Amino acid sequence: MAEQKATNITWHEGNVTREEREKNLGQKGCTLWMTGLSASGKSTIAVALEQVLLQRGKHAYRLDGDNIRMGLNKNLGFSAEDRTENIRRIGEVAKLFADAGMVTITSFISPYRKDRDAVRALHDAAKIPFIEVHIDLPIEEAEKRDPKGLYKKARAAVAAGKGMGFTGVDDPYEAPEKAELVVPSHKQTVAECVQVLLDALEKRGLLKA
Amino acid sequence: MAEQKATNITWHEGNVTREEREKNLGQKGCTLWMTGLSASGKSTIAVALEQVLLQRGKHAYRLDGDNIRMGLNKNLGFSAEDRTENIRRIGEVAKLFADAGMVTITSFISPYRKDRDAVRALHDAAKIPFIEVHIDLPIEEAEKRDPKGLYKKARAAVAAGKGMGFTGVDDPYEAPEKAELVVPSHKQTVAECVQVLLDALEKRGLLKA
Repeated sequence: MAEQKATNITWHEGNVTREEREKNLGQKGCTLWMTGLSASGKSTIAVALEQVLLQRGKHAYRLDGDNIRMGLNKNLGFSAEDRTENIRRIGEVAKLFADAGMVTITSFISPYRKDRDAVRALHDAAKIPFIEVHIDLPIEEAEKRDPKGLYKKARAAVAAGKGMGFTGVDDPYEAPEKAELVVPSHKQTVAECVQVLLDALEKRGLLKA
Repeated sequence: MAEQKATNITWHEGNVTREEREKNLGQKGCTLWMTGLSASGKSTIAVALEQVLLQRGKHAYRLDGDNIRMGLNKNLGFSAEDRTENIRRIGEVAKLFADAGMVTITSFISPYRKDRDAVRALHDAAKIPFIEVHIDLPIEEAEKRDPKGLYKKARAAVAAGKGMGFTGVDDPYEAPEKAELVVPSHKQTVAECVQVLLDALEKRGLLKA
């Protein structure tokens, strides 16, 4: 070993714990997992929640289609197998972010119950809070919104006998049976939806270390 | 839309930017990518660096074999194809952590130059600082250390005509040609290695927002 030159460094053996990171951040790491139909409002609510948390000096990060499907999961399609692997990877990454102490907000349709339950189990095993949030917009309302024309396209594909495996049209959406929160996004403003999530974080003591 | 009930929420349209998150955290997001032979000291240096940053109230997170190979990448083996996909996924996740404002420290052998260059390109495209750190221990020194007996095992496998695709023995390690930092871990103490990395972060203005 060479002579000790650096003098302003000290550390003890072993890894930094999640608790130490959380104390440093002034909050507790957790995953808010939003699930719901296309056009139910998941992303809108996620963006608004992230912003409010930031305004309060808290630290949040969103995992969504834009930063996952174009990057980490760009080698996955929409077969049942690929959908499962998609959610598995997102669940693992959400867990890492929560372990880092962040309020992690995910907004993916995540239509299959077993896939969401696997993510929950992953968090449970690591003792990381997992809050499943069902953004509960009825399919009729989602089809009325249809901001990207996807439902229309899916209905046309089914009518033409082709199908496109679109959630709620010709691929199942399995609603959560025991979600921590159910948010009917057609009966509440975005601000009210966000308030429900904030209250849930506060009630669980996650916004302080 | 329902009546506005929540009153303590305001936000503007659009996403929170990386700059806003960084201001909130008091630092800039970046990726410190350590590469080097097995037993070169990557993990030891990563653990120590994380701890020193935390002591200074900074926010860091380590991606390493323990939290990646057991989780996100548990469905990958050690074929050349799987090694590439392993590093690709880690690179994408490191980029997300850096985008979240964290000092992201990775410690993987990452033996192939093209895989590391792909991770660098990913960061460059997003204008996220990427610092490649070659933990430069000569193979003879690494074999002397051999804390897990892996080199011995690999040499025995090769001698028996079987081989195990072990980096530096019967799988190539392609040293970086233009790493931002080269750290000869046999000529410096761990504290000195950490100081070199800290200096690099400070010099680039990454430890303030």
